[in-house]
Amino acid sequence: METVFLNGRFLPEDQAMISPNDRGFLFGDSVYEVTRWYGGYFFDLPGHAERFRRSLNETRISWKEESRIEEISLELIERNGLGTECAIVYLQATRGVAPRNHAFPDPPVEPTVYGFARRQSINTLACERGVGIWLTPDPRWNRCDIKTTALIANILPYQEAHDRGYMEVCFVRNGLVTEGAHSNIFFVREEALHTHPSSNEILSGITRKNIITLAKKNGLTVIEEAVAADMIPYMNEAFITNTTGEVMPVIRVSDQVIGDGTAGPVTRRLQNLLREHIQSLDPRR
Amino acid sequence: METVFLNGRFLPEDQAMISPNDRGFLFGDSVYEVTRWYGGYFFDLPGHAERFRRSLNETRISWKEESRIEEISLELIERNGLGTECAIVYLQATRGVAPRNHAFPDPPVEPTVYGFARRQSINTLACERGVGIWLTPDPRWNRCDIKTTALIANILPYQEAHDRGYMEVCFVRNGLVTEGAHSNIFFVREEALHTHPSSNEILSGITRKNIITLAKKNGLTVIEEAVAADMIPYMNEAFITNTTGEVMPVIRVSDQVIGDGTAGPVTRRLQNLLREHIQSLDPRR
Repeated sequence: METVFLNGRFLPEDQAMISPNDRGFLFGDSVYEVTRWYGGYFFDLPGHAERFRRSLNETRISWKEESRIEEISLELIERNGLGTECAIVYLQATRGVAPRNHAFPDPPVEPTVYGFARRQSINTLACERGVGIWLTPDPRWNRCDIKTTALIANILPYQEAHDRGYMEVCFVRNGLVTEGAHSNIFFVREEALHTHPSSNEILSGITRKNIITLAKKNGLTVIEEAVAADMIPYMNEAFITNTTGEVMPVIRVSDQVIGDGTAGPVTRRLQNLLREHIQSLDPRR
Repeated sequence: METVFLNGRFLPEDQAMISPNDRGFLFGDSVYEVTRWYGGYFFDLPGHAERFRRSLNETRISWKEESRIEEISLELIERNGLGTECAIVYLQATRGVAPRNHAFPDPPVEPTVYGFARRQSINTLACERGVGIWLTPDPRWNRCDIKTTALIANILPYQEAHDRGYMEVCFVRNGLVTEGAHSNIFFVREEALHTHPSSNEILSGITRKNIITLAKKNGLTVIEEAVAADMIPYMNEAFITNTTGEVMPVIRVSDQVIGDGTAGPVTRRLQNLLREHIQSLDPRR
């Protein structure tokens, strides 16, 4: 039985229950974060904690104990015996339980805070062979920079891609590639990386940010400008990044094969740079 | 203690608990409906039931007992002693409980179905004096026709309007008025009603539909075309419609006073027509 975190307490998963009058349930009035644990240490936990606080701030959800993000994350790992495993920690905070009403509860109520940790390894086969992603219109709202749990606009196209055999979607807004349903998208052309700039139209990924830093540090050009969907055939390489998948080569965008249909050299190099960077974070080294 | 409905059972509100691993909580992967009870009968329950089934269908949430919508709604009214009261019934269905993963659970799991009823009278003062609504960009996704609980894009601007003393927002997309955060918006100009057409950009309201029918039946012209935000100053009247509020005159849109700042004659007439129509539905008449 897994141990989860709920409103200040660690308890067995089957005892963690919430009211259906929780605004996370009634309204998607809630934000979250997912952080990766590498069998002994987190990857950029400060980056995730900072983004979580930003999401709370942007949605005006007030969690007095937000300074405990790091501590709760670590305790979830330990209590579930995941210390030496590859795992993820999920944390979610909602505006709390109140009679259903669009307006925020007045006076405010305590937020509901839920967290769990689970074993989750990297999909090494997909990282090796690459995946296909499905070009589809971006149906989402205009604040994709907030990591809210109101994710139905991500879920429905993602499932459609999944049904068609793709690993992710490639959202297009106004003719420009934004990102995936749960990953950022990079293209490579003539040794330069191209990715959508950090704006309200994408969730600024922690892995994305780290890849950009690593790329620049290693002499690669990074152009933070959106790629037009009709330029995809001219791209040499593509890859997606996220916390759970790291760097995954994209070898096909809908019917369009990218490059020679295998992971390209720049993608490989970035996979290796990220892997080395992750290993360098190991405090036991 | 209120009696609520949860997964086939009626039970005291404080015993109704759900798992935080419910996809309604984790993803806003969920749809809902609100129906009004007029102390003896529902207003257009078949219309609400049909829309609920459409939402389930569009999101591919499969609820085997969806034919019980009417029966459950009535039982919620009865068990809460609301038979002779003005009340609302809320029903929500999610894709169910499953380990967190963007993809739909495979094989599918049972949906979570939650319902409650509560006393809620019409805001007669607002219906008499009219309200102000706040012009703001429509931040929502492109499937506003689905009545999903992933409502954070409605909640945040609504709260901002509320903080500024407005009763509702007036969403504008590409220069055109779409609707409110939980109501449809009508304008009156030279005896003709103007409202956004039923499309993916609005939730096609049950009260909206009934008002259009009543207006046409009574010789008014109804033009289902979006009104440009910059035409608002030229409108003679405005009103918003929804299940909980019926027809509420709009006397101000942001700083712009509409007409002479009181409920206009066409709005009054439609309020009366709707009221007569509602009374005509009373089976005891």
